Amino acid sequence: MWRNCVRLARRGLGRGAVLRPAPTVSRCGVVRGLSPAAPCSSLWNSVTWFSQARQLKDYALPNSSWSQGMMDLYSRFLEMCKDGTWKRIPSYSSTIDHIPESLKLTAEKERKETRLFLRNMDLEGVGFEYAMFLNPAEKRMVCLFQPGPYLEGHPGFAHGGSTATIIDSTIGGCAIFVAGRVMTANLSINYRNPIPLGSVVLVDSKVDQIEGRKVFLSCQVRSIDGQTLHAEATALFIQLDSTKSLQQQQMSFQ
Amino acid sequence: MWRNCVRLARRGLGRGAVLRPAPTVSRCGVVRGLSPAAPCSSLWNSVTWFSQARQLKDYALPNSSWSQGMMDLYSRFLEMCKDGTWKRIPSYSSTIDHIPESLKLTAEKERKETRLFLRNMDLEGVGFEYAMFLNPAEKRMVCLFQPGPYLEGHPGFAHGGSTATIIDSTIGGCAIFVAGRVMTANLSINYRNPIPLGSVVLVDSKVDQIEGRKVFLSCQVRSIDGQTLHAEATALFIQLDSTKSLQQQQMSFQ
Repeated sequence: MWRNCVRLARRGLGRGAVLRPAPTVSRCGVVRGLSPAAPCSSLWNSVTWFSQARQLKDYALPNSSWSQGMMDLYSRFLEMCKDGTWKRIPSYSSTIDHIPESLKLTAEKERKETRLFLRNMDLEGVGFEYAMFLNPAEKRMVCLFQPGPYLEGHPGFAHGGSTATIIDSTIGGCAIFVAGRVMTANLSINYRNPIPLGSVVLVDSKVDQIEGRKVFLSCQVRSIDGQTLHAEATALFIQLDSTKSLQQQQMSFQ
Repeated sequence: MWRNCVRLARRGLGRGAVLRPAPTVSRCGVVRGLSPAAPCSSLWNSVTWFSQARQLKDYALPNSSWSQGMMDLYSRFLEMCKDGTWKRIPSYSSTIDHIPESLKLTAEKERKETRLFLRNMDLEGVGFEYAMFLNPAEKRMVCLFQPGPYLEGHPGFAHGGSTATIIDSTIGGCAIFVAGRVMTANLSINYRNPIPLGSVVLVDSKVDQIEGRKVFLSCQVRSIDGQTLHAEATALFIQLDSTKSLQQQQMSFQ
């Protein structure tokens, strides 16, 4: 079954069951009220440049805890990055390091002893092991996710909150691509089948529609052979006003 | 404003804005198809007894990282436990220690190097600091939650996934009370205002309705003065068949 996945990946990520067909980008309709697409998509480029300049540790690179399944899938996606169809997204332990200096609010310029929730463990392999890839043309973000033994909910399975977290982050990354800085307004998840700890799943998210500052997205979490649907979700993200603090603008749109 | 909260707490947890009025238990309708209430509610008693027998560390007790606001609120709830209206819920680092031996599936009897997602950090105060209290008559579970600096999403604020996690756990605890072993089927969250790291919020959940194996619940996350609504959520939990593995039964009801 793994061979099927690889073969289909070689054909450019086909197979609906494994990775859904490209979302119909035209479903997004007219992008009203959003900043132009170019500055948003270039946010990721800025992040990459910024991290290289500071030589931060990128946690979205393979480590010894990654299973063979995780490694193989990662390699396939890397291969597909070569022609620019997909783009690997780096990941750091501090939230602030994902934001280019030019886009930081004044209060965000001071470094603090905080950590990004998904990168808060010192030990490799016990928490969230993941790597994200962006397909700009399809407005789609995929995350390869291997939940470690410290993410337990029911014995032997990933906690529903950890599944919500990886969905929120993946779908959020997709929203950032089209709208720059965003915030989750709604996240609705249907849990279909529990995710075994140590397994590898694909979190596959896409932009469905954009209306003014609102970005509507959806997501599926499947086993890498595509046979098991673990969860599916819809989300609404709101584009933020870069001149206001998070609290100010969150209050203003409700 | 804190004084208001305390005064109202002394009156037995009134004030809708801080902790909502008791849910109308009659809204639950007839409890059809669920196991009798007694075995479910006695699950918590079994957990307490079990932990005492093994002398496990209870993480839901105050530590030096708790702010004065967290300590004060905790003390008020402890006070309300004295007449049996509320019950403090213990919390351990391993999921398996929350399940009495008599209710464990065969595969769950072997101890593994896993950790409950919310209790996976060795350092006090950096992750999820929380304590839950159950009101059996109101079918209501409240969680006092102080998000630490390692739960960051937007700079300075709790990650949406960490908010989803504490909601899922609190609402899940409420579902366990009425239905024994359960699993999240749907979780829908509206994020209203971001939660500052280091602040204290109240996660207030209740059972709204029970239909066969389905338990419908809702939840609000508010600042301790009740003035700020951070998030609200609805959830559907499914009562599990204790004779089947998690994967078997999750497949069977969908």
